[in-house]
This record gives sequence, structure tokens and C-alpha cells, in this order.
Amino acid sequence: MIDHQMPNWLKQRAFLTPDRMAFYTGKETVTFRELDNEVRSLALKLAGMGFVKHDKIALLFNNQLDIVKLYHTMPYLGTVAVPLNTRLSYEEQKWQLEDSGAAALIYDEAYRERANKIKELNPKLQMMSIRELESQTEASGDLSTHVNMDDLHTIIYTSGTTGFPKGVMLSYNNHWWSAVGAALNLGLQIDDKWLAAVPLFHVSGLSMLMKNVIYGVPVVLHAAFDPEAVNRAIIEDGVTMVSVVTTMLTQMIDRLGDKTYPKSFRCMLLGGGPAPKVVLDLCKDKGIPVFQTYGLSETGSQIVTLSPEYMLEKLGSAGKPLFPCEIKIMKGHQEAEANTEGEIVVKGPNVTRGYLNRPQATEETIIDGWLYTGDIGYLDDDGFLYVLDRRKDLIISGGENVYPAEVEAVLLQHQDIVESGVIGVKHARWGQVPAAFVKLRGTGQTVTEQAVIEFCKERLAGYKTPKHVFFVDELPRNASKKLLRRNLYDLLPDQLRP
Amino acid sequence: MIDHQMPNWLKQRAFLTPDRMAFYTGKETVTFRELDNEVRSLALKLAGMGFVKHDKIALLFNNQLDIVKLYHTMPYLGTVAVPLNTRLSYEEQKWQLEDSGAAALIYDEAYRERANKIKELNPKLQMMSIRELESQTEASGDLSTHVNMDDLHTIIYTSGTTGFPKGVMLSYNNHWWSAVGAALNLGLQIDDKWLAAVPLFHVSGLSMLMKNVIYGVPVVLHAAFDPEAVNRAIIEDGVTMVSVVTTMLTQMIDRLGDKTYPKSFRCMLLGGGPAPKVVLDLCKDKGIPVFQTYGLSETGSQIVTLSPEYMLEKLGSAGKPLFPCEIKIMKGHQEAEANTEGEIVVKGPNVTRGYLNRPQATEETIIDGWLYTGDIGYLDDDGFLYVLDRRKDLIISGGENVYPAEVEAVLLQHQDIVESGVIGVKHARWGQVPAAFVKLRGTGQTVTEQAVIEFCKERLAGYKTPKHVFFVDELPRNASKKLLRRNLYDLLPDQLRP
Repeated sequence: MIDHQMPNWLKQRAFLTPDRMAFYTGKETVTFRELDNEVRSLALKLAGMGFVKHDKIALLFNNQLDIVKLYHTMPYLGTVAVPLNTRLSYEEQKWQLEDSGAAALIYDEAYRERANKIKELNPKLQMMSIRELESQTEASGDLSTHVNMDDLHTIIYTSGTTGFPKGVMLSYNNHWWSAVGAALNLGLQIDDKWLAAVPLFHVSGLSMLMKNVIYGVPVVLHAAFDPEAVNRAIIEDGVTMVSVVTTMLTQMIDRLGDKTYPKSFRCMLLGGGPAPKVVLDLCKDKGIPVFQTYGLSETGSQIVTLSPEYMLEKLGSAGKPLFPCEIKIMKGHQEAEANTEGEIVVKGPNVTRGYLNRPQATEETIIDGWLYTGDIGYLDDDGFLYVLDRRKDLIISGGENVYPAEVEAVLLQHQDIVESGVIGVKHARWGQVPAAFVKLRGTGQTVTEQAVIEFCKERLAGYKTPKHVFFVDELPRNASKKLLRRNLYDLLPDQLRP
Repeated sequence: MIDHQMPNWLKQRAFLTPDRMAFYTGKETVTFRELDNEVRSLALKLAGMGFVKHDKIALLFNNQLDIVKLYHTMPYLGTVAVPLNTRLSYEEQKWQLEDSGAAALIYDEAYRERANKIKELNPKLQMMSIRELESQTEASGDLSTHVNMDDLHTIIYTSGTTGFPKGVMLSYNNHWWSAVGAALNLGLQIDDKWLAAVPLFHVSGLSMLMKNVIYGVPVVLHAAFDPEAVNRAIIEDGVTMVSVVTTMLTQMIDRLGDKTYPKSFRCMLLGGGPAPKVVLDLCKDKGIPVFQTYGLSETGSQIVTLSPEYMLEKLGSAGKPLFPCEIKIMKGHQEAEANTEGEIVVKGPNVTRGYLNRPQATEETIIDGWLYTGDIGYLDDDGFLYVLDRRKDLIISGGENVYPAEVEAVLLQHQDIVESGVIGVKHARWGQVPAAFVKLRGTGQTVTEQAVIEFCKERLAGYKTPKHVFFVDELPRNASKKLLRRNLYDLLPDQLRP
């Protein structure tokens, strides 16, 4: 709908400000010119291997420059990136590779063993490590100098309420408007320096790579999250903006001790679910400029963010929509009034056009351009959003989303389990962890809690695996036999109750 | 082509940050909420008078809040603004009213007499002063909450190379991408404060009104340009950005004396043609952060701007295109190589789709999305644009190109000359030769024509040296203080007139 051409972003950035620092990894500094040269070389090698426009290329990487470069080869070739969450089980990864119709998987050397396992399950898939790709010969052809803004750049898998993950299609438009909307809200300073310690395979990390080239601001890239290292980068290295989720922020404050952040540090962008008030109060006391924000893979990162001037007055709110975006609360088929909770519904040019090969899920989720998020919240009298709960049953564990339906579906694959229900229970470090309730097929089995956990561990990412399993005779259901997950909380032992 | 809907910008801004200051006029402060309330009231009054979508409404105003409000009524009604240059003769204004098919003219009380004269020439035109409009009754209907980005907001008349003014059509897209492109280059700080002393009926002033609502930064509005008042606003009132043309800048520096601008002042955006190196050198010495820029009505304000990091290294260059834009130099039908002069050709989503009711002029000017500006320049090895001159003013003498701006810059190096203008006059042998008009610093000098010619001869090739020098009290300039070279012809003695 809003298609037009624009110069390739990295190419344009390397033309406009070639000598500005693009990345600093602690070991390595790369300017935009250098980054672009390396990306072009990789793109020509991929072209030499026969990859063409619309091919999907899956990426299995930790946070490092290799995945940054591979992301940027996509516009040069017209290919589409399918970043894989490294923490998923290999069955899950195999499933996403098949569902997306990926033409190839490129992986970090660290994941060679994992790649071999996937290969066993999917022998026809073309696979190579980044080092193997680098040893290829460059094609002699030309690379695309422009992008069609409505073309896809990324497919990011997210598990919805339906139990199975769906591929969110993100176009150049989505990424562009996300970056521009954020800049109009947070500002854009010549001396800005972002820190990325969130995974680059998630939309939060990926959106920083887009801002990097569109804004022309450097990104300090951390391979893994280390609270002391992030604090050091803020205090000593001039980092001005950091993206975090609550568990990261809590650890950073914990390690900060009596120290404070310098005045140049202007934005702690806090996503990944509603933040506990106690954490926000702590930040207020310590003068940490927290910007609460609300976003989904489907919105290409944040879509609602609290502006600086309301940071204190509206503590606990996720704020107002970005300038190009809109929000409303729906209660059934009616728009809810102020202070009335309902489903959070959003709209904007950063919102996905839908899920890959899932027309029905797309139709159910996006109606007249409005995305029905499934999350619950309300708007106050001034139009500020308060997020009450993610997608009702969503469990957020260390900033990662765990969808009960997905875990329940895996539990049902166990030969002795006939019914399952999963909820989140409190956890000191991760905020929440999954707990499972299962009904066994008959009497006389000797299934143990540990056996069920092991069964899940083989099929699910660690953070999705239940930490507690309770055996019950019956699961709470309503008249139409729909599982009433909220009633499972009544069955918890006291020490796990919310 | 890139049509989609977006919330009405002022409405959205008033929703997001209602209490931020929108305007300060020296007498009055207006927040975004107040501005929006007043604009809605005016829009409902216009609706009550029967104005509907696509109606063109001409505006005849000095720099004041009334024209700001009227501009913002357009998206609420779907009407299109036709700002009139207040300095034009009433025959010229009448011509633009007819050419645009304006449904009405709304004027400042100060222009009542002028309006009456136009009325005599055009008795059927609906006309009212702003006070008359304010006394109307509000309609009871609804206002548009959204804009279609491809709809027109403004028609701005520009005298092109053809001699007759043409109406440049500017859409919401054009204004949006202009504002976003500028922010990605100049940055966007929470504490920014723009000063508008350039006319709001020109694209330079109008683009500031768009930035005002899109960025949410306040504008300090000066009714007329007063160099001392602008200096005071920078030094005392926290203004961080000012748009100027060379003659304004020169006067500001002149009145600045020994004072300097504070560090918070971060951008002197210098447009309106190539700047003399002597002025840029002076700014460099005084530490004034000048951003040279190049733009046209057709590009919705700047399209090429020098980034801060190249301010000194590339002194005299207009810089590189804004992030969403492109530039090339054409020599006949070929793209010129680096360091080769030719026609400046630009492309981007901020570029007009063409001239109102002038399909032929549009076709000749915009080819495959590229706007042929008629201006002359070159790109250096690094891709920086150097604007040599507007093509219309090019003097061709004995087959050699003479750019008036170059000769004028040399004249300004003369200690007794404060302003200069150069045109070509007929010559039997060489076709054309340059003739100079100069304004001397004060009275009492004894500078002779011969002395000025000698001065130039030492600094310029023979064919570039003026063959005539005329001493004048004032040079003809338009409302934004840009030199009107074509009006110099009127000052020539009969025997030299074309």
C-alpha cells in the first residue's frame, strides 16, 4: 500500500557518513564504510551461491557482527532473513525452517553441532557456517542499490495463543516507520550511542540495527548480557541509550551499588512486559531515566512509549503511541471508555501485514488495519496506556515470551498425558517460570515430575520448559470445556501463589 | 504512489504532548493544545461557510499566528492552502489566485486595501479578513481526524526559468519526508527551539510549521527579520536553530560585534543560494555552526545539507542529500563524472509531483521521478555538492560560462563593497559580458568603476571580469532577502538593456 523505492539504507549511510563508527564490540570497531564493504562482499558470495530475490535465509547466531552483516545482505539481494532464536530446541528450529520454506541456514561456528542435528532431521536443507560462506567466491553481478519499501526484510517467529509459532512478516516500511516513530519520540542526538545486549534475533535487537543505519548512530554490541559490563559501558564509554527488560534492569541496579549513571545517559528503554512498580520506584530514586514501552514482534518493536516529560507523573504507564501510530481498547465489539480494561488494539505503518502462509490467523488478528494484540490494558483519562497483562496467559520469563498453549501442546505429545494446563509462577530471578498441571491417561502409571520435565526439555527451549509439574485428576474447565487457566492458580502450593 | 492514512498531525501532537509550548511570538505563548483548539474552531467556521475537500484557499499574511492556524485548518477540511507572497504586485497576486482556481482569499487586516484592489480585478472571488472569518458560526459537523498522505496540503508559486510563476503541488507526504529527512540529518533534541524569521508564505517558513507539529518542538516566530532581535533570541532565549539566507546572516554577524552565540545554539541553517566563502570563513572564525543547504519549493525545503562533521573540511559545499533522497549531475543526457559541472538533478519522497495544471512543465521538469532543477553544480570525489549557480542567471560570454555568484563573491572581497549583484548584458563580440551592481559600505568613498574592474581582474579570468560597474543604494531582493537578479535589468542604462 505504501510502496516506493528508497536507496539501500546501509549503502546510503556509508555514502553520507562513511567514517562514523557503526559498531564497537569491545574488541573491534567498524565504521559504516567498512561495514558496507564487508556486507557487499558477503552479498556477492551469497549471489555466487545462487541465492536470489525472495529467497528466505535462516540465521542462527549469537550477538556478534556476523549476524549484523548477514541482516544487511538482505536488501542487496532481495532475500528475506529468518532469524532463529538460539535458545529453541532443535525440533522447534527445524519446524521454523520448514514453515518459512527457508532456502538455507547460515550458522555461527558455535552452533555446528546443533546444525548437524537439524541436518539429520532435514537432510535436503542447504546449510553452511559463516566461515564456509566467507570462503566462497564473489559473484561478478550487481547488487540492488534500492529497496522496495513494501518488500519483506525479516520473518520473525512468535508463538501466538494458538500454540504454534507463526512467522511475522516485517517489511522495510515496518522497520523504517518504527525507527522514525522512535526518533520523533526519544529524539536523536549527534552524540547518541546505543547499547545492544538484547538478542539480535529478537525484534528488539534487530530494530537497533535498523536505527543504527537510519540514524547513523553507533551501536555498542555485547555478545551476552552482563550487568556489570553494561553499567561500565554507560559510566565509562559514553553509552546514552540501552534497551532492557525488567530482569536485566534489576540486575543492573543491583550491581550499580552506590554509583550513579552520568547525565549523558538519557534513555533506559524498558520493554518486555509491565514493570513492577518497586523497580520503577527504585529507578526514580536513583535518577535513572526509564522509558517504559510496549511493543510486539508484530509492531517491529515499540509502538507505545512514555515520553520523558511524563516519566514521573505517569509512573507505571507504557505511555502514548508513537507519532505515526494509534491505539484503542476494545471490549467485545465496542471501543472501551477511559479507565475500562479490554484488549489492546494498535495501528500504524510499523505494524506487520500479517503472518507468513497463515491467511486465517492474519484475518483474525488484523482487522481494517488494526492489530488485535490479545494483551489486556486500559487508557486513563489523558490517553495513557496501562498494560495489565500480556495476552492474558502469556508468561514472561527473563524477557522471553512463553505461550502456555505451546507448552501444553508439547505435554500432550507425551504418551501418558491426556490433558495439560500451564501457567506462570513467580521466580526471584526470571520474574516468572512455567508450571504445568497434567492429567494422566489412567491409573497405575509411574510418571515422575522429573520425567515430564526431561520430556519437555528435549522439545522446548529451556526457558519454556516447566520448572514444576503437578499431577491432577481434573483440570478446571468452563461449560464448553475450555481450560480456565486462571483457576489453576488455586491449585498451586502456597509458596508459589502470586 | 505512497498513499496511506496518518492521524492529523496537529491533532496527534496535541494529544501526545498537549502542554508543550508550540509558539512564542514575543507577546504570546501558545501550547499545542491551545493551538489545536483554536485551529478546530477556525476549521469549523470555514466548514460552516461551505468550504469542502479539495477547495483551494489563498492566504495573504505576514508572519503571525493567524497564518499558522489557517495552514493547520487544511488537513481538518481537506482544503489546500495557496500562500501568497505579500511583496508581489496585486496584478501578480490576482494572476496566482486565478491560476490556482482559489475558492477564497483570506487576508490579514493589514492587507485590506490590497484585498480591495484585488477584488476590483476579480469581483467574483470570495474574500474575507481573518477577523471576519473569526466572527462566523462554527458548523456542527465533524472534522477529518486523518490525512491521506498523498493529498495536497499546499500550492506554492515559484517563478521558474520560464518567466511565469507555476504552482508547486506539495502533498502531506512531501512535507512529512522533508521533516523526517531533516531530523535524520540535523538531529532532534528535546530542548530544541527553532526561530522563524523567514516568511511563512515561502517553503522555508512553512516547513518549520510542519516540523513544529511533527517534532513537537517550539517555534519562536518573528513578524519580520530584525538582526538584533534574532541575535538576542539566540543569546538570551535559548533558540537552538535558525533558518537564514546569506544577507540575513551577514547582518546578524555585523550586529553581533564582539559577542558570541552560546554553545546551546547548534544550527544556523543557511539556504537561498550559494554562500560567499568570505561569509563562511567569518562564521568559522566566530564558531558559528553554519549548515549550508540547498533546496527549492519543489523539494519542500532543503534536500541537500552539509553534515556537522564536514562543516570545516567541506566549507562552501551544500553537502549531501538527506537520507531518503538522491542527487546526480547531468550533462546533456549523460550523468556527469565527479568534479564536472552540469545540471543538478534530485529525487526523493519530498519532491513535488509537479506543477498545478501544467502537465507539460511537469513532464519537462520531472523525468522518471528525477527533478531537473535547472541549477548548476558539481559533485566532488566524495559526493559533496557544490552549487555554482541557478541556470537562468548563467552568463555565457564567448562560449565560456560565467556564474554571477562567483563574480559577486569576488566583489564582496573588496573592502568598500557590502552587497553585489551580477548579470549578463549584450555584447557585439562576445554575446554577453558581465555587469556588476554594487552597494558601498557608506558614503564618502571614492571608489571608481575602473578601480573595481581592476580589483576583479586581479582575481578572475578576463571573461569573468565585469565590463560595467554600477553603484546603487539598494539591490532588489524578495521577501526572503534573496537577490532578484532579473530586476537588475531594470536598472541598466537603455543602451545595455536586452
